Amino acid sequence: MMFELHPALEADSVLIGRFKLSQVRLMNDAKYPWVLLVPEREGVTEIHQLSAEDRAQLMEESAFLAEKLATLFRADKMNIAAIGNMVPQLHVHHIVRYKTDPAWPAPVWGKLPMKPYAGKEIQQMIEKIRDALKERLFLK
Amino acid sequence: MMFELHPALEADSVLIGRFKLSQVRLMNDAKYPWVLLVPEREGVTEIHQLSAEDRAQLMEESAFLAEKLATLFRADKMNIAAIGNMVPQLHVHHIVRYKTDPAWPAPVWGKLPMKPYAGKEIQQMIEKIRDALKERLFLK
Repeated sequence: MMFELHPALEADSVLIGRFKLSQVRLMNDAKYPWVLLVPEREGVTEIHQLSAEDRAQLMEESAFLAEKLATLFRADKMNIAAIGNMVPQLHVHHIVRYKTDPAWPAPVWGKLPMKPYAGKEIQQMIEKIRDALKERLFLK
Repeated sequence: MMFELHPALEADSVLIGRFKLSQVRLMNDAKYPWVLLVPEREGVTEIHQLSAEDRAQLMEESAFLAEKLATLFRADKMNIAAIGNMVPQLHVHHIVRYKTDPAWPAPVWGKLPMKPYAGKEIQQMIEKIRDALKERLFLK
């Protein structure tokens, strides 16, 4: 089945590029560097529904992304989660957290309204993250 | 280095058993079936700090656990997360969510106070989960 991105993910995030399995997308929330991995597999809502091969790939994409984001943004902590209570299509959050960020130490979900990037900030963030991920990122 | 469980995890959860890599622990919160995986690796706070072999093992332990919990408790959704803003020792939450649970659709963290199991309930939960996981669980 053809993969189609859920409209809520399309609305809230922007494509950075693709890994072998997943779309890499920047959440349009300037409060924290916040990147989603969305495996391009239709009809999957839970990690355990992926094949073992896709799960292994997702783990390596997630660990690569988390390490690069942690280094690039000097994270105090990475928060990584598959929740999906509102948007069922499988997506894995990777959020750079700081002890000084507005939600710390709480998780980010449902705490504060989204704060969209202003002007050219989002394009600058995308370029910065693309550059950090370039060894495994496809831009098509 | 010898692995030592963080005192906050020791206080809030009870050992169900061990997979090859991780302790499997029941959170003492009767609001939702809530199980932690704690990889027995000293000094690790992020999934990407594990070796590639340990990461692959963690993924398979997590997917096995999530699928068994989803089936056993007829979950509407599994919530799976590595947060660690308060307790840095790497631990991965696996929470069975229902559209009728008290925090739905919000994530569970920081929403409502813990509700410890009463009397023999916690032992019954542990036995039930042990039975569901028995093909990969060590009880030592």
